Amino acid sequence: MVDYIGTARLQELVSRIGPARFMQELAAEIEADYRRWDEFEKSARLASHSAVGVIELMPTSDGKLYSFKYVNGHPKNTAKGLLTVTAFGVLADVATGYPLLLSEMTFLTALRTAAISALSASRMARPASRVMALIGNGAQSEFQAIAFHRIVGVRELRLYDSDREATAKLIRNLTRLQIPDLAVTRCSSIAEAVLGADIVTTVTADKCNATILTPDMIVPGMHLNAVGGDCPGKTELHADILRAKDVRIVVEFEPQARIEGEIQQLGGQGRVTELADILLARQPARSSDHEVTIFDSVGFALNDFSALRYLHRLNTENPDGGQRIDLIPEPDDPKDLFSGLARGRAAAGRRRFA
Amino acid sequence: MVDYIGTARLQELVSRIGPARFMQELAAEIEADYRRWDEFEKSARLASHSAVGVIELMPTSDGKLYSFKYVNGHPKNTAKGLLTVTAFGVLADVATGYPLLLSEMTFLTALRTAAISALSASRMARPASRVMALIGNGAQSEFQAIAFHRIVGVRELRLYDSDREATAKLIRNLTRLQIPDLAVTRCSSIAEAVLGADIVTTVTADKCNATILTPDMIVPGMHLNAVGGDCPGKTELHADILRAKDVRIVVEFEPQARIEGEIQQLGGQGRVTELADILLARQPARSSDHEVTIFDSVGFALNDFSALRYLHRLNTENPDGGQRIDLIPEPDDPKDLFSGLARGRAAAGRRRFA
Repeated sequence: MVDYIGTARLQELVSRIGPARFMQELAAEIEADYRRWDEFEKSARLASHSAVGVIELMPTSDGKLYSFKYVNGHPKNTAKGLLTVTAFGVLADVATGYPLLLSEMTFLTALRTAAISALSASRMARPASRVMALIGNGAQSEFQAIAFHRIVGVRELRLYDSDREATAKLIRNLTRLQIPDLAVTRCSSIAEAVLGADIVTTVTADKCNATILTPDMIVPGMHLNAVGGDCPGKTELHADILRAKDVRIVVEFEPQARIEGEIQQLGGQGRVTELADILLARQPARSSDHEVTIFDSVGFALNDFSALRYLHRLNTENPDGGQRIDLIPEPDDPKDLFSGLARGRAAAGRRRFA
Repeated sequence: MVDYIGTARLQELVSRIGPARFMQELAAEIEADYRRWDEFEKSARLASHSAVGVIELMPTSDGKLYSFKYVNGHPKNTAKGLLTVTAFGVLADVATGYPLLLSEMTFLTALRTAAISALSASRMARPASRVMALIGNGAQSEFQAIAFHRIVGVRELRLYDSDREATAKLIRNLTRLQIPDLAVTRCSSIAEAVLGADIVTTVTADKCNATILTPDMIVPGMHLNAVGGDCPGKTELHADILRAKDVRIVVEFEPQARIEGEIQQLGGQGRVTELADILLARQPARSSDHEVTIFDSVGFALNDFSALRYLHRLNTENPDGGQRIDLIPEPDDPKDLFSGLARGRAAAGRRRFA
């Protein structure tokens, strides 16, 4: 039997500790794994593109555990009442090849994406950063808001979305949470939202080369957390922001970011730093209060590895309500798979077996 | 909700029609898909190797459906009472990216592997082939025996395995099936088993360059169904068999077979034919009764695509006992993933949510 965490169980486990603590603990797990970066098998994800979206497989392994995530990205799904991004994943034992856990990862991806955004900002943004512009107020926005409040110390959010309903929904959800020290302002343009912000988070979803931020909006010392651009042809920053002189660009895994990140616009040019090098103190997170720092996040398999392992531990520590599924046969004799299959015959008992 | 077929459900569905008919129908599905070969997105599988085994992801798509399989190969697992190969897979809708079916594939892989072996032999072996040597009597052997009896018309099996217990198990299972027109002979060596055989099927599992068959055992007109060699460094045939003059080698997908098949021993040299070209009648399956034909099978993602779609239809046509799992959230508003997550709060009711 394989441990199973469906959406109901995930909701239950997150509710036990709350999403803020969940993301804080998860950020610590992600950091610990990035600090042993060289132990991981790393590859760009395997993507299957169609006219309307993409389906990706994201595997990694540290030689003891193996994980992969299935994730899709279909921007037009929301018009049909469906999610843009859905995901699930598996944690497996490298020694036997057996899966240990199958888990929903739609919620988990939202949590881990915000966790790593906040983790990187906690190193890259100026320490006194308290004001964040949040551009794109869709499915990922609450997670970013909560994670930056808890992990980075953000105390003021400036919101903008081209869809006014999305912003209203975000404000409604944040109000319901009754976070006492978080002010929220609705803005009528991107430029207005960005004005005065220490950190700018972009989480928009169009599958095209959008220009959410332009060079005139950027001031020295800003930290940009560019989350929405995450596949070929899908970017959010004007290329001149990336090409500016006093800019530091940090990515999760350079070979993947060159294909999928904002830096795909640089055509292989320009220096970038990998997050692991910052967390391992091999490279500075920022060199001065004037530097513009950019976390060009596309989502790397290691983030999911950490998330699945953390979630699996949480699941094991809270055995009440845990579920298992019969994904793998358990024959009495491993060389006799056929008898294992034929056992079902008695149960079905309808026809002879061959 | 996503359709779920666990091992118990798979047993039930196979028992309803019996494994022989299951494999015969599946072979027809596989053939139909190979006949539209050019419509599929094809790539060599993504493998993660360790000292003791391999974990692989095998995706493919025809632009309407997407499938992938997770499969491991750990030859030493049987010593621990575990299966050498376990697998599961997913069928998804390309238009939305949503998974439609999660299924066990340990049993299903065994069924589809034998189905495609028999399908290719039905074209490649001489039409009067009735005697098959079956070398390696482990988990895959019963499936090969039943499929070749049903689909190819094999009436005599000559068995050999270095593990006498494995052969005893295979004979016991075949005897239990009471197939009236199938004679079974236990042999004391590979050479003895192969002597007089029209078809030789090798399904051994060691992760090394083994030499199960040597050139002296091969006679003109034989068909070799080489199933066991399926990853780098894992082969079953002496390289001189492949290099012989009057030999036709057929593979599923050449780029993958060059890495994983028997033909990895040819170092990129030698002509091979893809199975699709035979099923599309672009190439002959054999040119004479004297030619030695070899199906160098490693298992391709398309086989699993066909198997998952066939199984899903069978599952839908037999709704009694079908199961669904909550792998994907179903929020009222797709832009409001957070509220979907928070709904669990009321259920758990333990702490405030942020």
